Amino acid sequence: MDTQKFDIAVIGGGPAGLSAALTGRVRNKQVALFEHLNHSEKLQKAHIVDNYLGMPQITGQGMMQQFVAHCLAQKPALIQEKVVTVFPGDDGFTLLTPVNTYEARSVILATGVVSTPLFKGEKSFLGRGVSYCATCDGMFYKDKDVAVISYTSEGEPEAEFLGEICRNVFYFPQYRPQPAALRSQVKIVPGRPRFIEGDTQVEKLVTDKEEHKVSGIFIIRQSDPVENVLPGLVLDGEVIQVNRDMSTNIPGVFAAGDCTGKPWQIAKATGEGLIAVLSAISYLDKKPI
Amino acid sequence: MDTQKFDIAVIGGGPAGLSAALTGRVRNKQVALFEHLNHSEKLQKAHIVDNYLGMPQITGQGMMQQFVAHCLAQKPALIQEKVVTVFPGDDGFTLLTPVNTYEARSVILATGVVSTPLFKGEKSFLGRGVSYCATCDGMFYKDKDVAVISYTSEGEPEAEFLGEICRNVFYFPQYRPQPAALRSQVKIVPGRPRFIEGDTQVEKLVTDKEEHKVSGIFIIRQSDPVENVLPGLVLDGEVIQVNRDMSTNIPGVFAAGDCTGKPWQIAKATGEGLIAVLSAISYLDKKPI
Repeated sequence: MDTQKFDIAVIGGGPAGLSAALTGRVRNKQVALFEHLNHSEKLQKAHIVDNYLGMPQITGQGMMQQFVAHCLAQKPALIQEKVVTVFPGDDGFTLLTPVNTYEARSVILATGVVSTPLFKGEKSFLGRGVSYCATCDGMFYKDKDVAVISYTSEGEPEAEFLGEICRNVFYFPQYRPQPAALRSQVKIVPGRPRFIEGDTQVEKLVTDKEEHKVSGIFIIRQSDPVENVLPGLVLDGEVIQVNRDMSTNIPGVFAAGDCTGKPWQIAKATGEGLIAVLSAISYLDKKPI
Repeated sequence: MDTQKFDIAVIGGGPAGLSAALTGRVRNKQVALFEHLNHSEKLQKAHIVDNYLGMPQITGQGMMQQFVAHCLAQKPALIQEKVVTVFPGDDGFTLLTPVNTYEARSVILATGVVSTPLFKGEKSFLGRGVSYCATCDGMFYKDKDVAVISYTSEGEPEAEFLGEICRNVFYFPQYRPQPAALRSQVKIVPGRPRFIEGDTQVEKLVTDKEEHKVSGIFIIRQSDPVENVLPGLVLDGEVIQVNRDMSTNIPGVFAAGDCTGKPWQIAKATGEGLIAVLSAISYLDKKPI
């Protein structure tokens, strides 16, 4: 399979990502816009928004429809896959989704707020039993026992896929409605996961009800902790540390919107998306191809 | 005359100022919006703008009409006067215009870009012969000779007012069309002013053609150098130095839009206006009345 290469990969299709992708395309760059869900569920649930200048008294859903239509009219490559890992390389970045690999010369993180706190042990066992992508890492757990903790129904196909490979799959749905049943190797388990234990590798998952001996734990959230998707990214508390030009500590990586901190507001997000993409373009202009 | 007191004074009615005033009113603060011209001439001259998310393919003028209508629907006090000086006080700020005095507990500078470079001597003689407001300072020059350098036709009534008080008024129009004649005490002079000389006070204005002995020099631009309007404001090069929350070095003073630096783009301006006003509100919440 050929790898598609873009000038700019925008991760997240909320207001910040759409604004970045829009101006990137207006400036004639090859832009990939990664959005695996439905363009900011949070905004779409807003009843009325009345402080985005020029669009008075509009529903969150109506606003998002206009935002998406405006951005997509400029034809970024909309990729409806979840980016699970970003690797920096010599000549840009490699982005992995559960189904494909992409390359981009610069990256804009517009991933929104991760409101789910990490599990104790999650960070230290990342890559040593903890994974955010069954398709990517499932084969490492062939004939072993694994757990899947999922905050969205996206976890169901991931668990079923693992069911084809692994001995036992314990599925912990943390959302409603919970699935009635999955394929026979997948056991739906009630309870709230609490922490992850092991020596050098994951050995068990502890919930509020019991313990499960497992070799792998897959965690499926609406968005993954961004510092785990892109190791080495420096945070400021719980948000991505950025400069005034929206650059992060990693050259070629920029951030915009809720993931850079409060206020969690649309105009802040679109403004930062714009600044981030112009900074990315300036970065690309200075870097020889 | 009673002085009106506001929670927030927004200086400048372009996209940044309108966004700040809009959210300030949505948050139920008493907001004064100072705009003495026509809401960002620069944007209004833009043929088509296509990168403000949600408003595709719109003329600059059409966009500004929607922006102004949206903001004014929330009823900030629109004050069509030019703020010439801001004085910090114990309990907020005093703002002077040529015709009135206002008070505000916080200030948002959204004054746009000052593209006119300062004259040599302008900064050092400010308050010692150099003034930006004939109405404010004219009486200091009774029966003396003064110069008025003006970049807009707003200078004409200022010069005529000075003509009532001063002995001779030399008027240097730096715009087109130039006035054919003003009242008899006002002499319209060709030439481009170059620098200002004197010992402790202004003594003469030197142009590319000749020298004029004057005691006072009034300089009328679309917007005054903001660090002269608010002495003590720290700049970063030619733009206002701001933190990520759009605060400046002066407590209670925030800035947004083109006056904080590039990119000179609408989404950056509206986003910063939003952040600035939320920061101002947070500042007010912490400060006892």
